[in-house]
Amino acid sequence: MKPMGAFSPEFAQQHGPLVIGGRSAADWVAQAGDTPLFVYDSAIVAARIARFRAAMPAIDLHYAIKANPHGDLLAAIAPLVDGLDVASAGELATALDVKRASAISFAGPGKRDDELAAAIRAGATLNVESEGEAARGFAIGERLGIAPRMAVRVNPDIELRGSGMRMGGRASPFGVDAVRAAALVTAIVAAGADWRGFHIYAGSQALDAGAIIETQAATIALAARLAEEAAVAPPLVNLGGGFGVPYFAGDVALDVERVGEALRAALDDRAAILRETRFAIELGRWLVAEAGVYLTRVIDVKQSQGETFVVVDGGLNHQLAASGNFGTVVRRNYPIAVATRMGHPAADTVSVVGPLCTPLDRLGDKVALPPVAVGDLVAIFLAGAYGASASPAAFLGHPPAREIVTPV
Amino acid sequence: MKPMGAFSPEFAQQHGPLVIGGRSAADWVAQAGDTPLFVYDSAIVAARIARFRAAMPAIDLHYAIKANPHGDLLAAIAPLVDGLDVASAGELATALDVKRASAISFAGPGKRDDELAAAIRAGATLNVESEGEAARGFAIGERLGIAPRMAVRVNPDIELRGSGMRMGGRASPFGVDAVRAAALVTAIVAAGADWRGFHIYAGSQALDAGAIIETQAATIALAARLAEEAAVAPPLVNLGGGFGVPYFAGDVALDVERVGEALRAALDDRAAILRETRFAIELGRWLVAEAGVYLTRVIDVKQSQGETFVVVDGGLNHQLAASGNFGTVVRRNYPIAVATRMGHPAADTVSVVGPLCTPLDRLGDKVALPPVAVGDLVAIFLAGAYGASASPAAFLGHPPAREIVTPV
Repeated sequence: MKPMGAFSPEFAQQHGPLVIGGRSAADWVAQAGDTPLFVYDSAIVAARIARFRAAMPAIDLHYAIKANPHGDLLAAIAPLVDGLDVASAGELATALDVKRASAISFAGPGKRDDELAAAIRAGATLNVESEGEAARGFAIGERLGIAPRMAVRVNPDIELRGSGMRMGGRASPFGVDAVRAAALVTAIVAAGADWRGFHIYAGSQALDAGAIIETQAATIALAARLAEEAAVAPPLVNLGGGFGVPYFAGDVALDVERVGEALRAALDDRAAILRETRFAIELGRWLVAEAGVYLTRVIDVKQSQGETFVVVDGGLNHQLAASGNFGTVVRRNYPIAVATRMGHPAADTVSVVGPLCTPLDRLGDKVALPPVAVGDLVAIFLAGAYGASASPAAFLGHPPAREIVTPV
Repeated sequence: MKPMGAFSPEFAQQHGPLVIGGRSAADWVAQAGDTPLFVYDSAIVAARIARFRAAMPAIDLHYAIKANPHGDLLAAIAPLVDGLDVASAGELATALDVKRASAISFAGPGKRDDELAAAIRAGATLNVESEGEAARGFAIGERLGIAPRMAVRVNPDIELRGSGMRMGGRASPFGVDAVRAAALVTAIVAAGADWRGFHIYAGSQALDAGAIIETQAATIALAARLAEEAAVAPPLVNLGGGFGVPYFAGDVALDVERVGEALRAALDDRAAILRETRFAIELGRWLVAEAGVYLTRVIDVKQSQGETFVVVDGGLNHQLAASGNFGTVVRRNYPIAVATRMGHPAADTVSVVGPLCTPLDRLGDKVALPPVAVGDLVAIFLAGAYGASASPAAFLGHPPAREIVTPV
């Protein structure tokens, strides 16, 4: 038997049928028409946003839509956050459907000219990733007769300790090195572009409040140093995100309130040049991961060499991350349940595999589950972020997963 | 500097502009309209098929379309092979466009009832993966008034040594354990289904001819033993595939001629019960991987902390495997080139990254490349198998890659 991650608070105490947003998993499947199905509970997202607001009342909240760009979910989130962060012209178009352009920022190390033009034309903020990109942006702005809105993305000389994905403190394709950032600000101002401030992202998926606190303090200090060097105050500093969620056995949820308290103290002490600056935190995963449940149906239960395999109708084609094949070195089990038997004692150790004809397609490896039979629904939790949109949907020619957002 | 894999024979000797199927990479991009672009050279596929035919003239050749289901490529391959292997109802429908149903077999551990029905109705062969699936197939056949064509997929008590992906010799969701296979054959015959033989797949992506030879011999012996146990001769034994291609530095191409010679000897010695049996080998990757080139354009060249990053307009959203995030534990470099400077000496060590806002999006890590500038085309080789269709195309909202098949 191998351990699995813990259920999120909204599901941890359930007994009997799995309930998502007030209705049973079976109800949602009936409404959607079939499995495989992602259900996104908008109330859980709203609860995370409320928790953030309570912990960090003075900080702008941005949603990084790459975590989950589903239209209905985005429409539910947009009114509750101060900004949307996008990573392509496609995401920009999606964001513009639900948010004014001045609240949208566009990051990404390889923005094409047509993407720069789309953002400048719309009036979204470009998080400029290099001197070359800035120059292309100036030229396009001139051609369009629009002063581009530009923030400078900084590759910080800081790393977020313990983050699942480090993005600072090293050579990086993201942003300009801190030593060159002030010069880029000066160039942007000189070009007549509308300088919006700094975007400084040091890592993601961190569960250690101490590490985030340390990184945020260093980020504020870096922003102050760069602003002083450029001799201009940034309207906004995007402090990045990095708030992780507990996926695996032994993971402990991030203490967001502790982060908020420390951030307030750090901002109270900030340098004079940042006095009028707004600060934003950009979150994707932390807002939506726990809200998503991936529901699959058992097609077969089979024995092989003394092991039991539960074959379900959805797999890595929809939920690549849960199979351990996306950004993780060691495969570990996401939390998983038989959707009619929440809270029941485990009956057997089984492996839950998807329908794909590849050994990579394993959603649960030797997990202890209650009794499970053909036709049962199996739920894989933590499916709200980097799930459907981050998986190879066309692989092996199965239909895409259905997706439903619970009504607000 | 980190090493990269070797170019395939068709590209290894080129100098100057990269030529694919008689035309330059730039020509193909012009024809397709833009990058990112996959070009599949049908002549390379035909050459691999011809090599297989020469090495193994008595063996049926099947194409596993999951390796690359692109319609034009499939249309080019179908007339050259004896069978198509599919892994979903979606792939079945694609295959039926180009091949008669009796030459199509359908494997997969989680076939849904509607998928079984589609295959039975069409007259394709089900590679039956469990007793439960057989029972569902019998019931559907009865309902439709059609005797299902059924082969038994066996989980062999053999493993393919040195394979990239072992699929035998252990507990597995694929097929029935060898000890239960004869009983399943008996049940299929007793149910009045049309028993087609065995499907025995021990692993994939092996470069060691000795290991494949050993596995094939053991597979033939296993098929004979099971046939004798069931007291019925199999019309066909699918020996699986497992032929690998050299992706990485140090990989040595498989000696297919040596495999063919040994296989002929093994078949000459086969048990009497297999005397009238046909044998098939099922290949995906080996037929198409080397035929595919993924072409991207340089958006930016930037420096960070002493390293050079070449940012291109395509990445893991189209070619996940090359980023090292699909089925590989240690990230290694696929062969990669500046498409205008084939055979030129290396000028610099650079990392080639895609446009996605994630550190996972790295196509070449510290590779030695000739001079490269914004606007240049960069080619990533070995993109013909498990590329476009096995990648998270929707991730971050970029458009899908274009795909072109060179005319035969």
